[in-house]
Amino acid sequence: MKALLYHGPGARALEEKPKPVLIDPTDAIVKITHTTICGTDLHIMKGDVPTVTDGRTLGHEGVGIVEETGAGVSNFHAGDTVLISCITSCGKCGSCRKGMYSHCEHGGWILGNTIDGTQAEYVRIPHADSSLHRVPDGGDTEAFVMLSDILPTGFECGVLNGRVQPGDTIAIVGAGPIGLATLLTAQFYSPAEIIMVDPDANRLAVAKSFGATKLVQNNPVEEIMKLTHDRGVDAAIEAVGIGATFDICQSIVAPGGHLANIGVHGKSVTLHLEKLWSSNVTITTRLVDTVSTPMLLRTVLSGKLQPKLLITHHFAFADIMKAYDTFGNAANEKALKVILTN
Amino acid sequence: MKALLYHGPGARALEEKPKPVLIDPTDAIVKITHTTICGTDLHIMKGDVPTVTDGRTLGHEGVGIVEETGAGVSNFHAGDTVLISCITSCGKCGSCRKGMYSHCEHGGWILGNTIDGTQAEYVRIPHADSSLHRVPDGGDTEAFVMLSDILPTGFECGVLNGRVQPGDTIAIVGAGPIGLATLLTAQFYSPAEIIMVDPDANRLAVAKSFGATKLVQNNPVEEIMKLTHDRGVDAAIEAVGIGATFDICQSIVAPGGHLANIGVHGKSVTLHLEKLWSSNVTITTRLVDTVSTPMLLRTVLSGKLQPKLLITHHFAFADIMKAYDTFGNAANEKALKVILTN
Amino acid sequence: MKALLYHGPGARALEEKPKPVLIDPTDAIVKITHTTICGTDLHIMKGDVPTVTDGRTLGHEGVGIVEETGAGVSNFHAGDTVLISCITSCGKCGSCRKGMYSHCEHGGWILGNTIDGTQAEYVRIPHADSSLHRVPDGGDTEAFVMLSDILPTGFECGVLNGRVQPGDTIAIVGAGPIGLATLLTAQFYSPAEIIMVDPDANRLAVAKSFGATKLVQNNPVEEIMKLTHDRGVDAAIEAVGIGATFDICQSIVAPGGHLANIGVHGKSVTLHLEKLWSSNVTITTRLVDTVSTPMLLRTVLSGKLQPKLLITHHFAFADIMKAYDTFGNAANEKALKVILTN
Amino acid sequence: MKALLYHGPGARALEEKPKPVLIDPTDAIVKITHTTICGTDLHIMKGDVPTVTDGRTLGHEGVGIVEETGAGVSNFHAGDTVLISCITSCGKCGSCRKGMYSHCEHGGWILGNTIDGTQAEYVRIPHADSSLHRVPDGGDTEAFVMLSDILPTGFECGVLNGRVQPGDTIAIVGAGPIGLATLLTAQFYSPAEIIMVDPDANRLAVAKSFGATKLVQNNPVEEIMKLTHDRGVDAAIEAVGIGATFDICQSIVAPGGHLANIGVHGKSVTLHLEKLWSSNVTITTRLVDTVSTPMLLRTVLSGKLQPKLLITHHFAFADIMKAYDTFGNAANEKALKVILTN
Repeated sequence: MKALLYHGPGARALEEKPKPVLIDPTDAIVKITHTTICGTDLHIMKGDVPTVTDGRTLGHEGVGIVEETGAGVSNFHAGDTVLISCITSCGKCGSCRKGMYSHCEHGGWILGNTIDGTQAEYVRIPHADSSLHRVPDGGDTEAFVMLSDILPTGFECGVLNGRVQPGDTIAIVGAGPIGLATLLTAQFYSPAEIIMVDPDANRLAVAKSFGATKLVQNNPVEEIMKLTHDRGVDAAIEAVGIGATFDICQSIVAPGGHLANIGVHGKSVTLHLEKLWSSNVTITTRLVDTVSTPMLLRTVLSGKLQPKLLITHHFAFADIMKAYDTFGNAANEKALKVILTN
Repeated sequence: MKALLYHGPGARALEEKPKPVLIDPTDAIVKITHTTICGTDLHIMKGDVPTVTDGRTLGHEGVGIVEETGAGVSNFHAGDTVLISCITSCGKCGSCRKGMYSHCEHGGWILGNTIDGTQAEYVRIPHADSSLHRVPDGGDTEAFVMLSDILPTGFECGVLNGRVQPGDTIAIVGAGPIGLATLLTAQFYSPAEIIMVDPDANRLAVAKSFGATKLVQNNPVEEIMKLTHDRGVDAAIEAVGIGATFDICQSIVAPGGHLANIGVHGKSVTLHLEKLWSSNVTITTRLVDTVSTPMLLRTVLSGKLQPKLLITHHFAFADIMKAYDTFGNAANEKALKVILTN
Repeated sequence: MKALLYHGPGARALEEKPKPVLIDPTDAIVKITHTTICGTDLHIMKGDVPTVTDGRTLGHEGVGIVEETGAGVSNFHAGDTVLISCITSCGKCGSCRKGMYSHCEHGGWILGNTIDGTQAEYVRIPHADSSLHRVPDGGDTEAFVMLSDILPTGFECGVLNGRVQPGDTIAIVGAGPIGLATLLTAQFYSPAEIIMVDPDANRLAVAKSFGATKLVQNNPVEEIMKLTHDRGVDAAIEAVGIGATFDICQSIVAPGGHLANIGVHGKSVTLHLEKLWSSNVTITTRLVDTVSTPMLLRTVLSGKLQPKLLITHHFAFADIMKAYDTFGNAANEKALKVILTN
Repeated sequence: MKALLYHGPGARALEEKPKPVLIDPTDAIVKITHTTICGTDLHIMKGDVPTVTDGRTLGHEGVGIVEETGAGVSNFHAGDTVLISCITSCGKCGSCRKGMYSHCEHGGWILGNTIDGTQAEYVRIPHADSSLHRVPDGGDTEAFVMLSDILPTGFECGVLNGRVQPGDTIAIVGAGPIGLATLLTAQFYSPAEIIMVDPDANRLAVAKSFGATKLVQNNPVEEIMKLTHDRGVDAAIEAVGIGATFDICQSIVAPGGHLANIGVHGKSVTLHLEKLWSSNVTITTRLVDTVSTPMLLRTVLSGKLQPKLLITHHFAFADIMKAYDTFGNAANEKALKVILTN
């Protein structure tokens, strides 16, 4: 089969590779129909993720059709259309029992990382019963792809951890795909004001069309303190992953507020405890658990959530090299999420 | 009357000062029978708290007898024995309505800071109805003094924010008075293991007698990771206020765990988001709200909590200069809390 | 001044009465500009509320202008436009400190019950600082009247107690004003399905226009179990106050679900513990605390909530006797809330 | 092997039966070393549980040694000493994913109910990975048997659902084994007062030795309202399962309080909504989920919980017929829990 392989920093190739086979009785083999590229895949391509080794098939998102299941799989059967969670969970370890699938002792984020991933024609999914979700045949398959990672990430790490509540004023710092996914799902809780912060005017315009009530392009701290009458925001959501944006967040969070970090940080940051020690704030970090995926699926099926808004480009899977180029040049290409179809 | 006055960094004196009078209808005048000295008073004496100006009467803790009340005070009357909360709260602003009295728009920590405090024969208490608590006459008055600040601080900032739960393994970094108050109140939630960390062997011995199950004097990170089989702790509670102890806490908190900061920090710290971004941790800061004081009073009255354990030294109020010397030299004097009696 | 007085079951009259005066320093006198009639007022007129005695001015809802304040009132001044909360709270007792204003030791529901109410030209508001809310002059005053009682009641007793969550399937049994207020505020949490139950087709049509996703007029238990594939609903909200509707709720609540009672019940009901003991359900009751009023105000001001949808009829205050007739004949008059303007 | 079989109401016998064998790949066969008898087994013997059919091996509690595991079992191996949960959970269905194992789509309470149970020499445990818990060899095995059902039941249905908090005043109505298990585990949260209610003086004496602070034998409502100065209790926990005790609970629960039902009810009860509708109470029901078992295990291992206090009688398994007689005559025999050893 064809697969997109990692060959060290900067080196990727679409190559032939043997089709995966069942290894454990809890495995399923899924024929990928739709996949996408994640910002994390770009991090990997820079060499930032040392657990990814030469020859690994990348990708941890996708929708497909179950081809074959191990003897221990009972929830799924050949022919089922399934959504692949970016997090693999055994459902039985202590972490899974607490709903913290991201730290599953036998799973977590392994697809396209420590085992072969979804940017291929077929993928092996371990612990299939608790790592796949059935989706209706012929439904809006592209929308479902957004549920593999980006929407649960924005929702769990940003919205739930940020404790967004009706009537709140919140700020989302970063209007890339993950910030926009946060914006879409924050509206589940009807905050009164959603301030979107990004230096890119195009992304802010998209944010406005997605429901942001205020846009801030420059001098974010000053602007947001002015907008909030010097009170700050109830939730400051970091959706970039660098020190500068984390700094904005700690400067704008109101006493009693929440700073929810989503961004993947490569470096430590300075935490201003000399100011924050007395300000009753809560700072959270999280690798998505995908515990909210069944709920998100219901909201998509009921029409409350429109994940397709995030999709800007389409490619055939055979053109995945070109899709990486487009996604890697997102600002110029005005790209959010790309869909690859087998 | 006699009062302990601040005269700039390093300079304090016991002097005569006019007895306070009612200013607002919501004020009460309280005759102090018992007070104490807080670690924060030592910070003030170092010049670390610029809101404290020359001539200020220090102190924000104490028990006394109501002498006189304004027309707007309805909960208290002359002759009532009362506990003075270190936090003044109006009960009517947005912060008070949310239970965040520390950020009361008309109060907060003002006693011995922006208005005259309790290290005197008399004190004026603004917003008396919501800033005092009635205590039984002739009860164990010294024990109640511990409820002005240290016990709600340990409990709210450390135990509640640390979400200590039955069966948890927790670590308290710092076995000074505030760490020990945390240790006492953490036991309300029956953690399975309480690891106490301090370089001072005497304080660790005290911690053991207060209920610590494990003591760590050296190499805290290595020791705690060994004790927890490399899992880390469910709650890491910072009870010192410097970068080194905050560092210990971020190194030992388990995935999904809580890092509860109690310490008053004078400098920023380094937050290792490059490791923590994916570890699902929650970091909290808090100035005590004293929202738990009524509950703590009940537990003292029912005998479940023995705050007197924290008291090591007694002085007449006339000897408060000497009491500061003793408390300021706590390690050598084996001092925890000192009681001053008028 | 003119006031609507209760003279025993079935007897009410618009009469002259002395204008109220300040009694306690925490009082305010408010000139009523807008008021309304509550279903509870109809209960009173039937003689169901024995605490209401002959000569009482009815009414516990309204917007007005502060005329005069006592010496102890600091948040409001003459000329302020204010929303009157149906619940009076002192802000200082144990219940108020917990946010349970409905059980305030010095307040609770007293307006138009144990003291004179708002269906008059002027009203005395005890504990004004914590029982009034400032609203913008010239704003949409009629909309704010809905925040005195009906919207916080639907939201707190129905939506918050019912723990409505994104993606949930909920049922609201009763599409009268209170059920519709619940429907409006339930959407703050983006449930996937809101099933509205009422025998009145007109009210169901209104519910549909307000956002209900499914309507059930007959055989509610059978219909709802069919709609939910025999699973039942995550939240069953009782908005009527009789045994039959409570019965529907206990028959349709799913394992792990919430039954939130809003209705004012005059009789005991049968609780089917022989079925429910093992079904992990939570049943709640609540007299509204109006703790959510500031948040609801923000959502109205930001345009997220449109309380005017609930208003069907307008009268001059001088025509309040006729307004009672209309509201008392709500089904035929297709009346929801009526607004009375002074 | 020997097993205790149900042969219809009133009829039980210790008989020979084939040793169970693996059926599904997720099964384990466990050799029982210790088991016990539950109050529910007595209900079954009365014919109250129609899902139990003739020939069923009773029992849903026990500790044993894994004899054999199916191909899909990965957490346990032959030779492991294990605690058997009374609730079987697949870990993969929607209910299990929410931690509501009691309503597992493929499990729940099935042992000794719809499949053969633990009052035998061997038992087949479906979904072994998520329905067994490893315990240390040679530990205090008898204590662990109390973790199969009675301690998680008292803790989850009574203490957690009752939201017992430090400083609370709670009442436990019924001092049988389940009420006493609630009493033991309520102390994890340090309530200030625990009022124990039972007509049996011996059971009250046991309760006192277990930590009850007040005992009430007669006129419970009057006595408790007197003890609480007419306020009522923060949590009223029903540990019997009849209308009369549920009535006590609804009469004594304070405004804002919790009524946590543990008892297995055979009949409906009268709920006094005409009083309770406005009292802001929460009523809960629950079939134990055993989600707290790992935590309870840790507290037993750390010595915080002494489940052996509940054990009054010991029998060889061969004498189980006599053990039933003793347990069925608990008041006269002063029996709490009996241990049967193979």
